[in-house]
Amino acid sequence: MISVVILGAGNVGTHLFKAFNKAENIIVNQWFSRKTKPIDLYKNTVEVTDNLSSLKEADVYVLAVSDDVISNLSSKLTFENRLVVHTSGSVGIHDLDKKHRRGVFYPLQTFSKEADMDFSNVPICIEAMDKNDFNTLKLLAESIGSTSYKVSTEQRSSLHLAAVFANNFTNQLYRIAHEITESKSVEFDVLKPLILETAKKIQTMSPYMAQTGPAKRNDKKTIKKHLKLLEGSHHKDIYELLTASIQHTHGRKKL
Amino acid sequence: MISVVILGAGNVGTHLFKAFNKAENIIVNQWFSRKTKPIDLYKNTVEVTDNLSSLKEADVYVLAVSDDVISNLSSKLTFENRLVVHTSGSVGIHDLDKKHRRGVFYPLQTFSKEADMDFSNVPICIEAMDKNDFNTLKLLAESIGSTSYKVSTEQRSSLHLAAVFANNFTNQLYRIAHEITESKSVEFDVLKPLILETAKKIQTMSPYMAQTGPAKRNDKKTIKKHLKLLEGSHHKDIYELLTASIQHTHGRKKL
Repeated sequence: MISVVILGAGNVGTHLFKAFNKAENIIVNQWFSRKTKPIDLYKNTVEVTDNLSSLKEADVYVLAVSDDVISNLSSKLTFENRLVVHTSGSVGIHDLDKKHRRGVFYPLQTFSKEADMDFSNVPICIEAMDKNDFNTLKLLAESIGSTSYKVSTEQRSSLHLAAVFANNFTNQLYRIAHEITESKSVEFDVLKPLILETAKKIQTMSPYMAQTGPAKRNDKKTIKKHLKLLEGSHHKDIYELLTASIQHTHGRKKL
Repeated sequence: MISVVILGAGNVGTHLFKAFNKAENIIVNQWFSRKTKPIDLYKNTVEVTDNLSSLKEADVYVLAVSDDVISNLSSKLTFENRLVVHTSGSVGIHDLDKKHRRGVFYPLQTFSKEADMDFSNVPICIEAMDKNDFNTLKLLAESIGSTSYKVSTEQRSSLHLAAVFANNFTNQLYRIAHEITESKSVEFDVLKPLILETAKKIQTMSPYMAQTGPAKRNDKKTIKKHLKLLEGSHHKDIYELLTASIQHTHGRKKL
């Protein structure tokens, strides 16, 4: 049995609480939040507190708080030499106060407030200063059905950066596709199966192999037609830059 | 029963043949290709020909050929006043020879040669000059399990353009994410669940509502950190442009 105290009641904290609470070999001893009101509804299931100095003993303290406050919160903890982890993609392990045994438990996924998260779809990137602590975190991840990866701080930073491309920037391309279809009164729904298939394709094929389209083919006629159709210099700039990027990747163009 | 002759044996032609052949109320009378060798294996199932002047009568002639040859091929057909459609996203309906009853049957999906295509995931954009012909094409689409959409030539062009953003450009962002992880010896696999979830999210939520991340939050510290991490001006340019694009969409920045 692994005992846990969660600190933070945002998206990540709440999803982790639900997953930990459901797991057979994890017990959540306490849930801390500066403001307990949003999590009062869980009071029958777990002890909720807003008092840092009354934290109970536990095997792992999970700091699911925003990047800016991780360091400070870890210093304020009144105990020492216990396993304290944060859940951030871009904060170093050494940002945690050195009085603790330190670790990172970074779930690499996009969390919505509404839908329950199936943690079998959430890879967890783990880092720890101590081998036993690493194994505890690995067991914690596996207990909620996640696949765990051993990832250093430097590697985690690059994953966090890559995730911005794969998630935020990709989503912005969906948004632009939405703007383009909307401007001609076409339902965005028509594009949804393509979007899903594009993401599915690279589950078994490298993005390099999966590439198709006018940029890869160097189909100048279609590219010219598209640039003419695009309204606003902003969409044009993105079209040109990503076309050049594809041509660079596929050996058509030097950048 | 709808009778069909398919012209062209590329990806789209082959997938359409398989789907038509499987459908209960469609009969493929003939399959034409300039080079019949790659489709010789279907000879027991369908009549294969490389002779344009021996084409059989059918309700619909489907030109699944590259954009450049559609117009010319349609002129070369020796009959008149029959329903001839092309399958292209970016070629106008009027590019077909006017001696025919003309139409478009554009499947908006990414086709791999290897995997069989489930046409219930393939929206078909339909256009026709004649109402009866439109209904025939609609029935043809429904008979292979597809959802059909009535889409004008202008709308189809914008869908084709939007698909470049949603498919080719998105895939290039996956590629860049792959390059970033690879450069730090991290498995690209860690990102795959995130990529799938990002695509799934917008099936029920607008891309606008689905957006998260440092650009949307205007988290300057993280953006600065990411730009420092990026190797090569090329990835930096894309990061900056798409960050600006997100901030423009979410009201943080004038472009």
